[in-house]
Amino acid sequence: MKTDPTCIFCKIVAGEIPAHKIYEDSNFIAFLDINPLSPGHTLIIPKEHYRWVWDIPNVGEYFEIVKKIANAQKKAFKTDFILSKIVGEEVPHAHIWVYPNKNISGNKEDFDKNSELIRKNL
Amino acid sequence: MKTDPTCIFCKIVAGEIPAHKIYEDSNFIAFLDINPLSPGHTLIIPKEHYRWVWDIPNVGEYFEIVKKIANAQKKAFKTDFILSKIVGEEVPHAHIWVYPNKNISGNKEDFDKNSELIRKNL
Repeated sequence: MKTDPTCIFCKIVAGEIPAHKIYEDSNFIAFLDINPLSPGHTLIIPKEHYRWVWDIPNVGEYFEIVKKIANAQKKAFKTDFILSKIVGEEVPHAHIWVYPNKNISGNKEDFDKNSELIRKNL
Repeated sequence: MKTDPTCIFCKIVAGEIPAHKIYEDSNFIAFLDINPLSPGHTLIIPKEHYRWVWDIPNVGEYFEIVKKIANAQKKAFKTDFILSKIVGEEVPHAHIWVYPNKNISGNKEDFDKNSELIRKNL
């Protein structure tokens, strides 16, 4: 598996940097964004170091996980409106954002509570 | 297949409203956005009327098509940086945006040329 020792996301995958994990399997990991746009704002990344989402061979499997997280956020934050963005300039390791709309109630800085709420609804 | 006769995207699927088509198969269709953020800004939608992307059963298949379009845009507009957004408030029919970054050259209003460029690179 290709990794980059200077990459912050590779360090999260390796457990060298802590994160509020939501989901993990052999290929992907999801955790809360430390600069959340809304409560429960989650990043889903491949464990392997790909530069762009579009470089990943198994994008279908990737997006099934994005959907799983989105549906857990719907239940956790009692909303139908879940957004997603793929940008990719900030950290050069493929990542997808998935997050509830800004009108939901909750404290976006309460990472312990928000991650637990999503995990419970997976 | 569920359709909504009042939905603008269902009308595009039915061919009742013209669109600059990029891709079509039995489940999905892709066409240029009429309010593009950048040249080649494409919408990919399921033919069936689902309210949200997260309601669609075959999201893996859906996202494989998003990737196919993103990779065609990379070649068509000579860039590595392709963005994607899922919002869904504007039109109540599931849709994914995929579009090149704003720094590429080209005229975003030249729908004929931009759609042909992407199709040629699929």
